[in-house]
This record gives sequence, C-alpha cells and structure tokens, in this order.
Amino acid sequence: MSLEPLGRPRRLVPGDRVAIVSPASPSPGPAFDAGLEVLRSWGLEPVVMPHAADEDGFLAGSDRDRAADFTAAWADPSIAAVVAARGGYGAQRMIDQVRWGRLQEIGPKAFVGFSDVTALHEAVALRVEASTLHGPMPSWSTFIESAETREHLRQTLFEPERVQKLVSPTARTLVGGKATGVTFGGTLTLLAAGIGTAEHRQDVEGGLLLLEDTGEEPYRIDRALTQLRRAGWFEGLAGVVLGSWADCGPEEEVRAVLGERLGMLGVPVVEDFGFGHCSPALTVPLGLEATLDADEGTLHFAEPALR
Amino acid sequence: MSLEPLGRPRRLVPGDRVAIVSPASPSPGPAFDAGLEVLRSWGLEPVVMPHAADEDGFLAGSDRDRAADFTAAWADPSIAAVVAARGGYGAQRMIDQVRWGRLQEIGPKAFVGFSDVTALHEAVALRVEASTLHGPMPSWSTFIESAETREHLRQTLFEPERVQKLVSPTARTLVGGKATGVTFGGTLTLLAAGIGTAEHRQDVEGGLLLLEDTGEEPYRIDRALTQLRRAGWFEGLAGVVLGSWADCGPEEEVRAVLGERLGMLGVPVVEDFGFGHCSPALTVPLGLEATLDADEGTLHFAEPALR
Repeated sequence: MSLEPLGRPRRLVPGDRVAIVSPASPSPGPAFDAGLEVLRSWGLEPVVMPHAADEDGFLAGSDRDRAADFTAAWADPSIAAVVAARGGYGAQRMIDQVRWGRLQEIGPKAFVGFSDVTALHEAVALRVEASTLHGPMPSWSTFIESAETREHLRQTLFEPERVQKLVSPTARTLVGGKATGVTFGGTLTLLAAGIGTAEHRQDVEGGLLLLEDTGEEPYRIDRALTQLRRAGWFEGLAGVVLGSWADCGPEEEVRAVLGERLGMLGVPVVEDFGFGHCSPALTVPLGLEATLDADEGTLHFAEPALR
Repeated sequence: MSLEPLGRPRRLVPGDRVAIVSPASPSPGPAFDAGLEVLRSWGLEPVVMPHAADEDGFLAGSDRDRAADFTAAWADPSIAAVVAARGGYGAQRMIDQVRWGRLQEIGPKAFVGFSDVTALHEAVALRVEASTLHGPMPSWSTFIESAETREHLRQTLFEPERVQKLVSPTARTLVGGKATGVTFGGTLTLLAAGIGTAEHRQDVEGGLLLLEDTGEEPYRIDRALTQLRRAGWFEGLAGVVLGSWADCGPEEEVRAVLGERLGMLGVPVVEDFGFGHCSPALTVPLGLEATLDADEGTLHFAEPALR
C-alpha cells in the first residue's frame, strides 16, 4: 500500500485557543515567554499545558506528564491547535503513553513542530491519519528572530492558500525532474531512531521524503541514511526534498554523503530547500499530496494544508 | 525462539595465517604497522587483504572492495582468523555485499573486532551462526599501549581455558543477581542502527546483552536504548553487561540514563565491566553461553571460546 494523503485540520481564526506542549526537552523561560507573545500577536490564545514548563534534566518532566499534556491538548475540543514549544530530545520516550484512541476520536488538529517532534509527526500520521506541519516552534531562537519564518507559519495556519506553492529561493537540483507524492519525514536521525518501533511505517511507497538534521557529522548522516535504506524506506519513493544540515560539518562533505546515498535512487532530489534548523525556515505540510519540481525548486500542494 | 549458543571456531596456534581486513574506516599507517608487529610477535602470520589499506574519505575504500576482502578472508581455508584492523564507520554499508553463502560453507572462524564492527558480529551470528570475539583491534591505540589488553586477546585466541571466567576488577552492580544466557551485543548505537535491516535479530530472548559506546552524549544513549526497547530487544533478556562509555559526557549523567533505562528490566545488570573503548579492555566472546554474576562482577563461560 502506498502513502495516501491524510486528513486535514481546520484552519485557525483569531480568538482560537492553541495548546502549548513540551513533548521533549525543556524550553528556557525567556524564549518560552517570547514565543507565546508572538502567538498572542496573531490573535491566538496560548493555553500552556500543566507540564509544558516542567524540567527534569534533558526532559521537560516525566514521560507520563508529557504524554498526558499531549493527549489532553488534542482531546480538548476547545483547543484548535497543538504547538510544541521546543524539540530537543524525548518525544520517543512518551509516545507509548499517549492515549491515541482519544486523539482518533477527535481527528485532525493543526499540530506544529519539528526536530525531535518528527517522532510525533510520524506517530500522528500512523495513529490519527492526520496531516501535520513541519514548522518552527515558539521557543526556538529563529522563531523569535526571523519575521519571515514566523510569517510563513502564520500564513500556513490562517491563510493556507497563500502558501500552497512553496517556492524555495535557495534550492539546488541534485537530481532533476518532477514528481508527485505525499510528503512525509523530517529530522533524519529521528526517523532512523523510529525504525523497528510500533510507530514506524513500513511502506512509504509514493512518498516525497523530507530530510534535514542538525549537529550530525557526515558519517552519522551516512549511517542514518544507510539504515533507512536497508530498512526499505527508499523503495518506491517519489522524490526527496532536503532541508538544512546546520552544524553537521563541512558542507562539501555533507553534500557528498547526500549525493552518494540519494543520487542513486532514480527520483527527483532537491537540496537546500529551506526548512529545518535554518533561518529563515519554511513551514512544510506533512501527509499531503504535492508535486516537487526539482529543477525549479518548488513544492506545490494539491490542496491548502488546512481546511 | 530464544538465543542459542553459536558454533565455536578453532583456537589459534603459532604459524597460523590471520587475515587483516578494514570493513569500516581506514587505519593510520603507523598504527596499522605496529598492530601487525604484535600479531607477528605471537607467532602469527598477518595476511593484509588487498584493500585493507585503502582510503576513501571516512571509508577504507569502496563498499564492494571491503566486502570482497571480508568474503575472501573468511572463504580462504588457509586463513585461521579474520581480524578487523579498525572500526570507525562503514561496516553496515558493506554487509549486503558480503557473500554470506561462502562464509556459511566454511563455518566458524575466529573473528575479532568491536565498535563499528558490531554490525558484522550481528551479521555473522545471524548468517553464519558462528560465535565471534568482541575484542581490541590491532590499529587501536589501546592495543599498542596496553599489554594487559593485548594479553587478554592473545590468551582468548590461543589458550581460551585460561580466560573462560572473566573477572572484572572494575565492575559495579546496578541490579544484583545471577543469570545464565547467550552473550550478544556490542556498541549501542551500532546495534540501534541495525534495527529494521536484514541482519537484525528480532528475538533475543535469553540473551546476555553487552552494551558500550564512545562519543555519544547521554541523550543519544537514551535515544538508542529507547529504540532498542521499543523495538522489543529488552523483552526476555537474561541480563545486561555494560562496558565503557568513553567521551560520552559527565559520568553521573551517563549512569543516570543507564540506570533509568536498564534498571527497570528486572534482570541482573553490571556496570563498568571493562570492555569497549577503555584501557585495559577485556576480550568478550559473543554468541556463547555464560553465567553473569552481577554481585561478583564475573562472566563465566560454559565452554572455552575457541575449540
């Protein structure tokens, strides 16, 4: 079975309540507060979940509490969207404790995050069959500093028609051509670390795979790509959209690894599309049909990301 | 099906020919030569395989050539043992190109390595059903510098009765008790990176899991342990034997992660047993029945590691 487009959440309107969760690592206080101010400036009402500001070493509180917040946020009908405050590490530890049945009852809801949150994007795709947004998180420095990054997320949430066609100003063609498929993916090492778990999708045929990462040396990028490949995730892909590789070592070495591991797939591949740990960073919908033009550097979604 | 003891290779005698392969990263020339001298001092004849000194970035030559060397070394009846010169990264890239059928025809042969070579230990266990040696590699600085490390490998290869019971001088009890099982494992991140591939063993019930690593921050150790756990590798384990965690960050943070992820398993767990990226480093047979005494800090093998 190949990847099918997933259910779309409704778009946001001013006055909407938006839950803030911390499924992974804790956010520094000032960044957390600054992020909330931005959401308020959009006319949203941020609802900070009970454990969103918890801290326990590299985790934002216990697995149970992080999972409870995530479940409660999604299950609350008065909440229009769930936004992860930050990535870091830890989402994979709490996934098993999320009450997925309650999320299924509610169905699609706008969900924003990236990096470690990749694990939750995959889990929501598999368990809730809902599309999500690979986008900047309010406690992230780039969210505070880059107006372009904020505005692209805002438009995606409120006026998704305006950003239905993503035009990358930085994209480079690795393998040319056009391909239509369903977007999925996110942070490479998180995708690799999900293999073998209950939330790993075995068959991603027809997918447009998004990949980016930060702080991974070239041999680690090679290792994660090799694992995805040996686990069958490169079979039947429609295309590959590469984001940023911040702090991953010399650019030419990173590009050599990407070119060697992905250039052989025989499908369109575009580099430096402009999402992930970069500034500015595009918001990219996951789980929706889109056409990649690897020559032009565009990703054109068949429908607006939110209803 | 639970883990069964694997076939034992024959022990070495002076005059034996020993193949040197580089399945992963290239070795620096001087270390490579010094390692060969040690093997010669044991009365062995090192046979440097054609591509063992190749170099291509972080790989010791092409995947095809590294796999060909490994296959040829094992398939040659005049070769008594196969020794990896160094780890680094790359064994997972060449596993699919090894001609496993030829190795199966030959059967067990002494095979030494660790770190990235963990991927080959797992593959040999699954494909050849042969026990192997998690031991120091000749190009590794500790092999050159630590007489104790060299001598323990030498005894294991030539006089395995003398080291049938491993007594760790550094071991600490994390969870007390005794457990009998079949040893397996190695470097944590390599085991995690093997999940989902054709060489990943689904069922490790009854196993005594060895784990160690180097250069992995605590959150990365947590991530890899979480992946193993969520992929089912912690189900039915007999016990856990932890080695060194060199350059993995503050010791108390590493120990906190290990204690939290492994202390809950309800089986004996011993820390700092003294194998892996440490000096001195024990040689530990993989794929053989042993009894772990987590209170005494001993690992007693039912039979000598080599026939």
